[in-house]
Amino acid sequence: MSSADIEYDVIIIGGGPGGYVSAIKAAQNNLKVALVEKDKMGGICLNWGCIPTKALLKSGEFINKLHKANDFGVVVDKFSFDLKSIVNRSRDISKNLNKGVDALMKKNGITVFNDTAKIISNHKVALSNQTLNTKNIVIATGSKSKIIPGLEPDGNVVWNYRNAMTPKKVPENLLIIGAGAIGVEFACFYNSLGSNVTIVENQENILSTEDDDVSALAKKHFIKLGISILNSTKVNFIEKSKDSITFELTSENFKETKVFDNVIMAIGVSGSFDNIGLETLGIKTNHGFIETNEFMQTNVPNIYAIGDVAGAPCLAHKASHEGIICIEKILNKNNIKTLNNNSIPSCIYSYPQIASLGLTEKAVIASGETYTVGRFPFNANGKAIASGETDGFIKTLFSANTGELLGVHMIGAEVTEMIQGYAIGKELETTQVELEHVIFPHPTMSEAMHEAVLDASDKAIHI
Amino acid sequence: MSSADIEYDVIIIGGGPGGYVSAIKAAQNNLKVALVEKDKMGGICLNWGCIPTKALLKSGEFINKLHKANDFGVVVDKFSFDLKSIVNRSRDISKNLNKGVDALMKKNGITVFNDTAKIISNHKVALSNQTLNTKNIVIATGSKSKIIPGLEPDGNVVWNYRNAMTPKKVPENLLIIGAGAIGVEFACFYNSLGSNVTIVENQENILSTEDDDVSALAKKHFIKLGISILNSTKVNFIEKSKDSITFELTSENFKETKVFDNVIMAIGVSGSFDNIGLETLGIKTNHGFIETNEFMQTNVPNIYAIGDVAGAPCLAHKASHEGIICIEKILNKNNIKTLNNNSIPSCIYSYPQIASLGLTEKAVIASGETYTVGRFPFNANGKAIASGETDGFIKTLFSANTGELLGVHMIGAEVTEMIQGYAIGKELETTQVELEHVIFPHPTMSEAMHEAVLDASDKAIHI
Repeated sequence: MSSADIEYDVIIIGGGPGGYVSAIKAAQNNLKVALVEKDKMGGICLNWGCIPTKALLKSGEFINKLHKANDFGVVVDKFSFDLKSIVNRSRDISKNLNKGVDALMKKNGITVFNDTAKIISNHKVALSNQTLNTKNIVIATGSKSKIIPGLEPDGNVVWNYRNAMTPKKVPENLLIIGAGAIGVEFACFYNSLGSNVTIVENQENILSTEDDDVSALAKKHFIKLGISILNSTKVNFIEKSKDSITFELTSENFKETKVFDNVIMAIGVSGSFDNIGLETLGIKTNHGFIETNEFMQTNVPNIYAIGDVAGAPCLAHKASHEGIICIEKILNKNNIKTLNNNSIPSCIYSYPQIASLGLTEKAVIASGETYTVGRFPFNANGKAIASGETDGFIKTLFSANTGELLGVHMIGAEVTEMIQGYAIGKELETTQVELEHVIFPHPTMSEAMHEAVLDASDKAIHI
Repeated sequence: MSSADIEYDVIIIGGGPGGYVSAIKAAQNNLKVALVEKDKMGGICLNWGCIPTKALLKSGEFINKLHKANDFGVVVDKFSFDLKSIVNRSRDISKNLNKGVDALMKKNGITVFNDTAKIISNHKVALSNQTLNTKNIVIATGSKSKIIPGLEPDGNVVWNYRNAMTPKKVPENLLIIGAGAIGVEFACFYNSLGSNVTIVENQENILSTEDDDVSALAKKHFIKLGISILNSTKVNFIEKSKDSITFELTSENFKETKVFDNVIMAIGVSGSFDNIGLETLGIKTNHGFIETNEFMQTNVPNIYAIGDVAGAPCLAHKASHEGIICIEKILNKNNIKTLNNNSIPSCIYSYPQIASLGLTEKAVIASGETYTVGRFPFNANGKAIASGETDGFIKTLFSANTGELLGVHMIGAEVTEMIQGYAIGKELETTQVELEHVIFPHPTMSEAMHEAVLDASDKAIHI
């Protein structure tokens, strides 16, 4: 039997977190599933995003910590770092996880085609040399970096994220265009390696989707680390040589021409769906992303789109949850739990870390809801003091009428591991009063999560 | 007006977390409150327990991490530590927090008597030179270490926790009697400083209140660190000199006589209520702790007991929540949320850390409830791999009938900061299905919390 004769229940295009999680979910429910991925399994997240950057950032964190060794009674005579080892560690981790996903595919009996895919009808997907039949199609092709015309990455002085993750040497002067999550993470990493890092951002605030208070404190800490931050600044490419690139940086107050060894483009992403055949079936897109309903169905009901390609927030955990939802829809399940954007936590692994969930204070104000706000700084938390991690705070926003948790905003050490508590609360539709009753263990930094709730009704203990 | 003429709404005896939190809560509700503490504010927790040990353990963690510098691409030529700086850091942190609590007392208008207190009637407390009148009394006098007769701490070779927190030199050979939380924390700390540490425990397992799987893995890791662990072993004191102490260690399989530089006693605690006048009013105790009802009332209704003195678990966060409860009772509030022991998380700051909540698997089996169990190892978690923190696992226990979360058991890096998520879920009476729907951020170690829930119904993705 040729592969064309097999009818799959679902064909998934794209092997990132959304794609492979939906494939596993489908297989767990005995669907016949194929996954088509032209590159390595795991997508950008695993190969060139979340995972390898976090590996790099761990090395950077280690270096930063060594500068503070004396604080802990430890005397480090001399230390250095080996860039090649740092990069290799990051690459090896991606490679191992990549193999891990391959193994999961095998274990779950998922047929993987290492190929390109083009949707040619709502039941047919063409690969290079064959056509597959299927009942359903899931598009999980992720996103691609936006590029400034004329500033295409050259892997030499103009870096895309791949180049930025595999440097051959540490740039002395590095420009990062864009102060979103990716921009500030690279800024912190290269700062820890000793680069003079400049971030340029055309908006008024860095991390513009975060709460203003968090954005302001983050900026303060990045500057303290030695990172130059230019807000409300326009960047004009002047010229490029073999080993340098010149920009003119312009804001209301100044104009400066500056030479950098490298520039990293971090100005956002858009859906990646070139040549997958959207046009053939008239699948609708909107501002660079595929349109879907709450079950991740496109305007062609048996064709689904999940993850980055289906729109912001472009986060792996959103993608994998959408992967679960679309398979449940394919399985015709009842009471499918659809996604509430306010329940999706967001994490940034800068120094210090940032994590948030739900609405910013600005958004709450814009919504017209009356609200209470609680704040608690880590420098009033015993464990943070004992750990030498007193930077940052937690801010909570509750509806004054219903006590609903509207938003939480955290900045500080390891807040990315803490935010899940609020995510659990949010999913369980918690209120301010219920969170007051939770027993947070002592001594932990997570007690600040409790105090930030108590503070919203002036009941905090340690401030 | 002499102080005897003032009538307080509540007098709190003891300035530990239970005491000072209840004092603040009382003051926030406009009660006239006095607190009597003969030592420094903050109790053992802040001065000689939770906080200063965590400071020491952070230094130890730092040292252990330096041994792994190469893993992160960092080359540390030579390092050492300065014991005096490590100890001073820990003491300074306690001192600062101590001052912080003093400031909170002032800010909240709480009268603090630095004195001993004796209850002489249910409305009178005698200090050294005066008697105070009060409507209510809260006993928050904490606990004291149990002592093996004949092995009284001498501050020289036989150490109590205070001595163990302020060493003048690192013992070459150290015996720790008792493998509970305090014992293993000191074992990990002194192991990181280079001591040959032996833990002796008469029970079959170390950390006997933890789940067996956690206890077993912890033991494996402690042994890997180089700590000797002798379970089911009896210890007999043989002799003591100026700078050493000899014990005979006996188990079924062996008998050994061994000389140590120091011994730390960590065999548990009992309520500390000597000379506070319990007998006068016939306040009932039971197995070394004061008996109370769910509102923390003793058998004399206007006399309350909270925290360690009121029984296990002897944890600061239990004490402070009991402090809130007793004040709410004094305020005659309705619908007071009383404490459920299964909602109190427990944390151990060993290397790796341990955190748990609710029932162990053994306890679930003993209860006769049918249950499901989920497990997820950190070595299958992307962030753990990227962080070089793959030791450990998470285990969840759910009721097979109702989906109720019965218990969670975590061992691994920073699990003490993660357990709050389950504590929030438990407080909100979450079920397995609800926790499945929570969106945990990627890439975090907390995703293992999700997978351990999914695994309980064979839906885990990454194993």
